[in-house]
Amino acid sequence: MEEFDVIILGGGAAALSAGLYSTRAMQKTLILERLGYGGQILVTDMIENYPGFPEGIRGPELSTLMEQQTRRFGADMRYEEVLSVEKLDQPLKLVHTSEASYAGKTVIIATGGSHKKLGVPGEDQLSGKGVSYCAVCDGNFFRGQDVVVVGGGDAALDEGGYLTGLVNKVTVIHRRDQLRASRILQERSFNNPKMEFLWSHVVEEFQGGVELETALVRNLKTAEVYKLPTAGAFIYIGFESNSGFLKGHVPMDELGHIETNISMETAIPGVYACGDIRVNSDRQLGNAVGDGITAALSAYRHITEGS
Amino acid sequence: MEEFDVIILGGGAAALSAGLYSTRAMQKTLILERLGYGGQILVTDMIENYPGFPEGIRGPELSTLMEQQTRRFGADMRYEEVLSVEKLDQPLKLVHTSEASYAGKTVIIATGGSHKKLGVPGEDQLSGKGVSYCAVCDGNFFRGQDVVVVGGGDAALDEGGYLTGLVNKVTVIHRRDQLRASRILQERSFNNPKMEFLWSHVVEEFQGGVELETALVRNLKTAEVYKLPTAGAFIYIGFESNSGFLKGHVPMDELGHIETNISMETAIPGVYACGDIRVNSDRQLGNAVGDGITAALSAYRHITEGS
Repeated sequence: MEEFDVIILGGGAAALSAGLYSTRAMQKTLILERLGYGGQILVTDMIENYPGFPEGIRGPELSTLMEQQTRRFGADMRYEEVLSVEKLDQPLKLVHTSEASYAGKTVIIATGGSHKKLGVPGEDQLSGKGVSYCAVCDGNFFRGQDVVVVGGGDAALDEGGYLTGLVNKVTVIHRRDQLRASRILQERSFNNPKMEFLWSHVVEEFQGGVELETALVRNLKTAEVYKLPTAGAFIYIGFESNSGFLKGHVPMDELGHIETNISMETAIPGVYACGDIRVNSDRQLGNAVGDGITAALSAYRHITEGS
Repeated sequence: MEEFDVIILGGGAAALSAGLYSTRAMQKTLILERLGYGGQILVTDMIENYPGFPEGIRGPELSTLMEQQTRRFGADMRYEEVLSVEKLDQPLKLVHTSEASYAGKTVIIATGGSHKKLGVPGEDQLSGKGVSYCAVCDGNFFRGQDVVVVGGGDAALDEGGYLTGLVNKVTVIHRRDQLRASRILQERSFNNPKMEFLWSHVVEEFQGGVELETALVRNLKTAEVYKLPTAGAFIYIGFESNSGFLKGHVPMDELGHIETNISMETAIPGVYACGDIRVNSDRQLGNAVGDGITAALSAYRHITEGS
């Protein structure tokens, strides 16, 4: 079985940043990614809020730059799906993939997650062209315009509230006639003059040409279907953590987020979590980068100091 | 007195990242920097480990890019020295600078640190005349000549490496017989034919007339003291936290680093610390960026939720 100093699960910004620092610290490093390097930024059109790119940079381009940088310093990067882990609490931790099994002195979990999609026609085609899953990332593109938010939980109201600071009007489209969000968020939202609610409605389709123009919505109580013009649609119907295969191995919350301290250490010595997968992450690209660096340096100290 | 949602103390990467996120969230944001934007990266030659720049980027160039990006979204950036703070535990916190006083709903401390001095005779007198803390600024004055670097950490070897591109020979003077710098930097330095090491030595004095001529060094193992002719001396023996003016206002450790939780919250509601100034920072550029983003989003939540 091949042995590594550091095995990194995932290939997004947190993973690539961790890999960059681990290889520069001369640690034998393996990065395991099942699909493509970049993670969430790979499916992000324009990124305006990663410091260093004043004009913004397209997600796929930045993904490639980060991948090149990590490769340059010698990380071993393989396209393999991680299926299970074993003996995480032992000095040599085991990682089983679709192709092989590996042993690592340390394991860095950077598997991230993804936003749940509505699964309606037009959603994928207009993603990055009006359809978004991140208000903090994309809200600025819609200054002074009207947008919709789809969802009724904390995230929907949180991000909807954030958007009211930027746009003309936010219409929250929710399939039920009451919210599941926390009371305080509900109260704040109802008191927000820029926030409106479309109860018992669902989006059936997103329509547009180069950009989103219309959400086709259905009133579930009357069955009426009609067109709602909108410049942007922010979808908050859940975030899925890629941590199912870790259940029972690492302490996590009910949403599958892994608990860490400020050094990205989990409860298990030699096991770290960073980026979107950790509890309390703000899930911004810059956070993933900082987290990944911290995790790699913590792993380096664990290996060299045997702590 | 002018009032702001967010007052950011400092102008380095953490401060600029926080300012970027605060202004994008439509918070009225003031950034107070006394010297120049970029902080430590402004005095760093080549940065190879900030994800997104596979070929590396020069520190001053990256500083400018980050400054432009934060300005683009409307941050109010002023060259003023912060002298004192007041009423940090009140809803409106006061910041007094060399020019004026400001009130802020939140304060983000991102003041970083500065290079420590050796504190030996001749150091101050010959500063700028051969004694330097910035290879990028001053390296060109010593083309083809012999210089020394004092220190044994990453900064010493990083900047020493830079100098070998300009000067005839770099002698690293280190008080111990081994380095604390990262492995990759050590290996690169040992393989650099223009780099030599003077182990277990300290500088006792800098001597010269109009310019530096000699470093008086002591061999700690033999107690021998002798003159080492040198045109330049670059000192990299650590950082001092810029937090003296905060003593008694915010809990900090004996090194002046401010204690925070993973959300960059200090013990005082509405007051945040990020970047090199916080306890347990790995003091990498990527860490400063991630920290600054987290601090800004925590401040945003504090303002909007009144928590």
